[in-house]
Amino acid sequence: MKVFKIPEATVIRLSIYSRYLHQLLNEGIDTISSTEIAQGVGVSSAQVRKDLAYFGEFGTRGVGYKVEELYGYLMKILGINRTWNIAIIGAGKLGSALALYQGFADRGFMVSDILDVDQNKIGMQLGNVRVEHLDLLKEKVREHKVSIGVVAVPAAVAQDVTDKLVDAGVPAILNFSPRVLRVPNHVILRNVDLSVNLEVLSFNLAYSKQQ
Amino acid sequence: MKVFKIPEATVIRLSIYSRYLHQLLNEGIDTISSTEIAQGVGVSSAQVRKDLAYFGEFGTRGVGYKVEELYGYLMKILGINRTWNIAIIGAGKLGSALALYQGFADRGFMVSDILDVDQNKIGMQLGNVRVEHLDLLKEKVREHKVSIGVVAVPAAVAQDVTDKLVDAGVPAILNFSPRVLRVPNHVILRNVDLSVNLEVLSFNLAYSKQQ
Repeated sequence: MKVFKIPEATVIRLSIYSRYLHQLLNEGIDTISSTEIAQGVGVSSAQVRKDLAYFGEFGTRGVGYKVEELYGYLMKILGINRTWNIAIIGAGKLGSALALYQGFADRGFMVSDILDVDQNKIGMQLGNVRVEHLDLLKEKVREHKVSIGVVAVPAAVAQDVTDKLVDAGVPAILNFSPRVLRVPNHVILRNVDLSVNLEVLSFNLAYSKQQ
Repeated sequence: MKVFKIPEATVIRLSIYSRYLHQLLNEGIDTISSTEIAQGVGVSSAQVRKDLAYFGEFGTRGVGYKVEELYGYLMKILGINRTWNIAIIGAGKLGSALALYQGFADRGFMVSDILDVDQNKIGMQLGNVRVEHLDLLKEKVREHKVSIGVVAVPAAVAQDVTDKLVDAGVPAILNFSPRVLRVPNHVILRNVDLSVNLEVLSFNLAYSKQQ
């Protein structure tokens, strides 16, 4: 099979399409055109077709897509036709909020572990999971087959925690700290900066006034 | 001035460029080419030039951009050459984590108000802000000139809280709830779904195995 790189923006749109298709499924809708998907999520229909074309031929000209089939296929492409175990490092406010965030389980992401070094937090119950000491990371990762580590610790210790995740064999890391992290090439890293979301709003607020 | 729509992906990249330029400024670097910006943030140099071209002519052919000048200009485009006051609705785990998130203040977003209806939360101190009753929303929005309302409440009450923000005259809303919200045309709405970040990782984990 040919290896081609899929743009991250495409992956994010596939995720958005899949949510919309899920909504349509719940409404009992059987088939949909790329134009209708485009209108439903606010992109051009050419974009929808281009995004789907990365993964082969879908739909029938003049008929459109079968909602259930396309939804199942998108979930498979996104890798969420299965569940993934997540370890959250840091049981502070952000780590706790993420541990209890209902959107994760809805998409197949299960928080299997929450680890911290603070004795006041260890033993705390967050949903179904008990906060354990970070020293147990390696054995928890093995025991629960953890695929994704979430870094929710202060910037000063973020690289140290990341090194521990890499050392424990966690293949993918989601970083919520403002620190730029170094990982080896075989580890997938994604940085989340929540203020980008506010900047999209401030841009629109500032820009609309300039017009 | 001509009104043209700037793609959201461009706005997000401008935000990323501005962070990179800030880092360069701290390192004492004076000038940079579009190729160097591109390499620094991981996009093509044609993309960098295209993104900047929306806003006019920058840089000098063969010399590149003055880092400080371009940084200042990007901050202005993004609307963060000033501060914006934010009201967070919901002082639960997510609302509290957002209230204390250090990345916001770094980019000029000041949490001026945190509001809730839970008597156990009202009076709680989060950073410099005291949690107040949601009934005070209208007067707080006026007093603090709140520009952005953050919805960090359970899905069941998210639309109700949004209606209250709109009614109080808040022009932009950031929604962290999984609920699809309705707002009038003059209000800017952005939905944040934290699980999309995990899906970019699961896509890469699943896809790399298929190759």
